[in-house]
Amino acid sequence: MERKRIAIVGVGLIGGSLALQLNEKGMAAGIVGVEANPEHAKKAVELGLVDEVLSLEQAIDQSDVIILCIPVDKMTSLLPKVLDRITHQIVLDAGSTKEQLIDAVKNHPNRGRYVATHPMWGTEYSGPGAAIKQAFENKAVVLCNSADSDEDAVKWVKSAYHKIGMHLLEMDAHAHDLHAAYVSHISHITSFALANTVLEKEREDQAIFELASGGFESTVRLAKSNPSMWVPIFMQNRENVLDVLNEHISQLRKFKACLEKENYEYLEELIQNANRISRIIK
Amino acid sequence: MERKRIAIVGVGLIGGSLALQLNEKGMAAGIVGVEANPEHAKKAVELGLVDEVLSLEQAIDQSDVIILCIPVDKMTSLLPKVLDRITHQIVLDAGSTKEQLIDAVKNHPNRGRYVATHPMWGTEYSGPGAAIKQAFENKAVVLCNSADSDEDAVKWVKSAYHKIGMHLLEMDAHAHDLHAAYVSHISHITSFALANTVLEKEREDQAIFELASGGFESTVRLAKSNPSMWVPIFMQNRENVLDVLNEHISQLRKFKACLEKENYEYLEELIQNANRISRIIK
Repeated sequence: MERKRIAIVGVGLIGGSLALQLNEKGMAAGIVGVEANPEHAKKAVELGLVDEVLSLEQAIDQSDVIILCIPVDKMTSLLPKVLDRITHQIVLDAGSTKEQLIDAVKNHPNRGRYVATHPMWGTEYSGPGAAIKQAFENKAVVLCNSADSDEDAVKWVKSAYHKIGMHLLEMDAHAHDLHAAYVSHISHITSFALANTVLEKEREDQAIFELASGGFESTVRLAKSNPSMWVPIFMQNRENVLDVLNEHISQLRKFKACLEKENYEYLEELIQNANRISRIIK
Repeated sequence: MERKRIAIVGVGLIGGSLALQLNEKGMAAGIVGVEANPEHAKKAVELGLVDEVLSLEQAIDQSDVIILCIPVDKMTSLLPKVLDRITHQIVLDAGSTKEQLIDAVKNHPNRGRYVATHPMWGTEYSGPGAAIKQAFENKAVVLCNSADSDEDAVKWVKSAYHKIGMHLLEMDAHAHDLHAAYVSHISHITSFALANTVLEKEREDQAIFELASGGFESTVRLAKSNPSMWVPIFMQNRENVLDVLNEHISQLRKFKACLEKENYEYLEELIQNANRISRIIK
């Protein structure tokens, strides 16, 4: 597959890691960055994630592929402007919500040049310094509503994700946002709330620091995630997240009721039911 | 330090991993197991975790140190019987709750031979097949009420945990159970409840399987934990767990209220507050 000139808009954790992978796998004939934060821009070049940082307009004009890796609220306002300016380019995004974004460009004359994707990988860290090699490998990437995208654009995007080791799933944006609420967004809410719980109850930071075991760390690590990324995700996926959050609170209330009533048989049943997750997650 | 003949009562994840470490670090002049589950007993010998499996009485009589690694409800009934039979031996336990256990032997004539400990390490798996090398290293171990234990016993126990790479903390049983509710027990409840939430809402197992990313896996992995270990922990630490669970539900309700009222400024504050956990947990 022919190498493309690639522009990464937002050179943080996701954009920076994508840049590393696309270079490594020989997909890129040069990668330029667009980055609003001057410190991140400097760092992205220093780390060799991108060759240089340009204005959005320059980057679009010089590139064959434009990849948007910015918070989903900014994406929704930026994507139509990018489509306004492109001629032949392929545009894709790596956002965690899809329905509002796709809606924002559904009648755009260049809609066909845009491919909506969600590579299901991330860490709790952010910024170009958080970018890592071999990111995305063996994870899923979701392509949404790809029938609305031009064939050549879909073909290149699929091939790029395939090259960096991801397995492809296709679904419509509505289904994506629903599933993402279940398998990603709710985990972040529980983790944020767990951190707040422990910070509220455990006034001795030192005790948390000294006693915290792997189990605590793994349930709470997502609580380090960046609010400027996550608030917009929760805004855009509000109804699905509320639905699953209500269910989660009611599941927690069952544990509470078991303990209050000392109903340990039912407590055991609840835990046995939860154990079924091991049939799905290795 | 002189090698001791060691008996491990309950050769599962914890007992088996301890056996591996004590052998590796040259603390043991032979390790025998006591194991109620015949399949686990067979496996423990096959895997070389213990030299042989004996009855409790035989194991006590032949050993210098007896380590109890069984669910905390069984521990509470077994510990007094072990203390009844010993002559010179050191007895310790690795249970996740401490107050009821210590209470159960507080007037026992051999109380001094018993050292109450909680090595803060585990995984979501159980049984001798889950035992791993290098377990416990760089984690904390809590010694509780050690002033009630004989000096020679405390000295050996500290030295053994030190040799396997753990850092020692001392606190009274009451404080231990409170802190353990915050930094360990609540994580398990949130994980069990999250698994039940997703299993309830997401009827398509395949979608979870394909889409689940590292974030979901890390928040839900503890949901694989064994109910026969965890129900007794929640029973024995019921009041502390209820207290922190109530706080956790009220923290989740704040996220819910933010979404319902579309109060995204407060949502951002909640997430920023949660981010403070990164000052404590690397």
